[in-house]
Amino acid sequence: MTDLLALTEELCAIPSVSGDEAALADDIESRLRGTAPKLDVERLGANVVARTETGAAKRVVLGGHLDTVPANNNLSPRREGDVLHGLGTADMKGGLAVLLELARRASEQPPRYDVTLVFYEGEEVADEHNGLRKLFEQRRDLVAADLAVLLEPTAGWVEAGCQGTIHVRATFDGARAHSARPWMGVNAIHRAAPLLQRIANFEPAVVDVDGLEYRESLQIVRIDGGIANNVVPDACSVVVNRRYAPNRELADAIAEVEALCAGADHIEVLNASVAAPPNLWQPLVAELIGVYDLPVRPKLGWTDVARFAAHGVAALNLGPGDPELAHTPAERVDRGDLDGCAAVLAAFLGL
Amino acid sequence: MTDLLALTEELCAIPSVSGDEAALADDIESRLRGTAPKLDVERLGANVVARTETGAAKRVVLGGHLDTVPANNNLSPRREGDVLHGLGTADMKGGLAVLLELARRASEQPPRYDVTLVFYEGEEVADEHNGLRKLFEQRRDLVAADLAVLLEPTAGWVEAGCQGTIHVRATFDGARAHSARPWMGVNAIHRAAPLLQRIANFEPAVVDVDGLEYRESLQIVRIDGGIANNVVPDACSVVVNRRYAPNRELADAIAEVEALCAGADHIEVLNASVAAPPNLWQPLVAELIGVYDLPVRPKLGWTDVARFAAHGVAALNLGPGDPELAHTPAERVDRGDLDGCAAVLAAFLGL
Repeated sequence: MTDLLALTEELCAIPSVSGDEAALADDIESRLRGTAPKLDVERLGANVVARTETGAAKRVVLGGHLDTVPANNNLSPRREGDVLHGLGTADMKGGLAVLLELARRASEQPPRYDVTLVFYEGEEVADEHNGLRKLFEQRRDLVAADLAVLLEPTAGWVEAGCQGTIHVRATFDGARAHSARPWMGVNAIHRAAPLLQRIANFEPAVVDVDGLEYRESLQIVRIDGGIANNVVPDACSVVVNRRYAPNRELADAIAEVEALCAGADHIEVLNASVAAPPNLWQPLVAELIGVYDLPVRPKLGWTDVARFAAHGVAALNLGPGDPELAHTPAERVDRGDLDGCAAVLAAFLGL
Repeated sequence: MTDLLALTEELCAIPSVSGDEAALADDIESRLRGTAPKLDVERLGANVVARTETGAAKRVVLGGHLDTVPANNNLSPRREGDVLHGLGTADMKGGLAVLLELARRASEQPPRYDVTLVFYEGEEVADEHNGLRKLFEQRRDLVAADLAVLLEPTAGWVEAGCQGTIHVRATFDGARAHSARPWMGVNAIHRAAPLLQRIANFEPAVVDVDGLEYRESLQIVRIDGGIANNVVPDACSVVVNRRYAPNRELADAIAEVEALCAGADHIEVLNASVAAPPNLWQPLVAELIGVYDLPVRPKLGWTDVARFAAHGVAALNLGPGDPELAHTPAERVDRGDLDGCAAVLAAFLGL
């Protein structure tokens, strides 16, 4: 059995902040060609895809992103017994180590399902940089599957599906005037007040989907208005973030947010991502959960599982590390979590 | 009779954006020593004070600031018949030209009241730079008087007294969290919503003082909150500007604004200036208005008249140029306005 904590530490020693993933992609590609010689390995930019071709009836894709957020005084990995601290340990080089181990085993013996392992760039930044997006656009054959598992940190839970997310900018116009003569102008910030009150008072629903409780949310995440202390402001901009449960279509959710922004002069959808249904009834999902009777909870944030769901592929999150510590200086992963995740997935794949 | 339009043009040809008034102060001082040899001239920094000492029973101070706001493609004065266009023409080198003419006449014959002419720096910027403030602090004897007239542009109206102005920053605290799990945090922008609604709904009073209608105002002039589109904001800052009529004390007005900001975690008074009562009943004020039966209206914005009022000196605004065009690229003054203003003040002073 591979020492997954040591392997994770080696991967963490190669910095890979978004936009700078090439060195890590080189390392991953080299390891795959060395330890999993029977897999087909393809490289597209800083994306590496390794596949078995056994002719099995079904195919499972397992994915992990290569990039990390910027360092927060935690660039160098640090071992403390069976715990590895540092940037990328949980999000998600621990998951990449598990994927490399699955590749090695799948090269030694044929898995129960054909396996596609995707190591991709640009997950932590704007969608246009996302490697999975590029693969779906340019080589959809490489990411086709019957089930997708993303090794985002879930602390061993199956985090099923994911909520959709929408950002809308609502802008209110006004007209400048001296603040001693405000009736000569129109105060854009005052005009925004009812929107703020409406959203602050909104009570988001808790939605049951496949027995999981998706807790929706609606937040104003930014507001900006005013140009000088003696001038009636002529513009006020409000950014609203909506998270919605996977029982709804994206278009419906956008229409709801736009209705909540009624009164604004300009409503711009900054980004809008579909939700992914949990699909707990789907046979491969049910089988994976059943291997070890894994605990299941809904995924409230958005992940790339929605990208698979949008292409008709059932998808879930399952990976080592505590999601609450991702993107914090306290990020870490421990040996038990890595070994447990590898054991669950290996059992599911018959490896 | 001096050509006041030509004199204004000469003064405008010497740039004097706030902080850079020394050259204009030199020019004014030199002109005073040349054309008004009988006046006592004192120089403090970029402030010039010229005084008669005839032993008259009463003294009138007439003031004008040397500085201008930054140029707005209008740095060089431009003549068009009897109209002078450009930065500082109305605000307020036209007024300075009138003051120089009054100095010249007061040197030729004793005025009815002793006269103090104050040319001062730093009016268009933060209060700490204000030359009148320095004079009141360091040489109060130089600005003592029974009546103060500021030659701010009023288009020939007497703009009586002035409203007080207060800026308060109300800050709301929150706690950051991922916007998919907002219940883990506290949204500071949502917490500010009731304040916005309360101020947007506020109906400012119109207050009668000495028969003049002071129209108060209450405006949010700035708002800022949020750090990232996926993060529940942990701070929201709101700047409120209150303009209040001169029937009230500053402390009462501050207390009112602070009460309106109830719910904020931090309330900071950024600046707070007293109002100046119109004092239309005051004998010298009534006499000045009566010279030409001048039209009178309340001053809604704040001016340095309040500085005199705070020291017990009745004060009013009366000067050439349209106040609505001050600080705009369309700023201008015309010959009739300059000559009219000089005639009114000369008649009042018996010059």
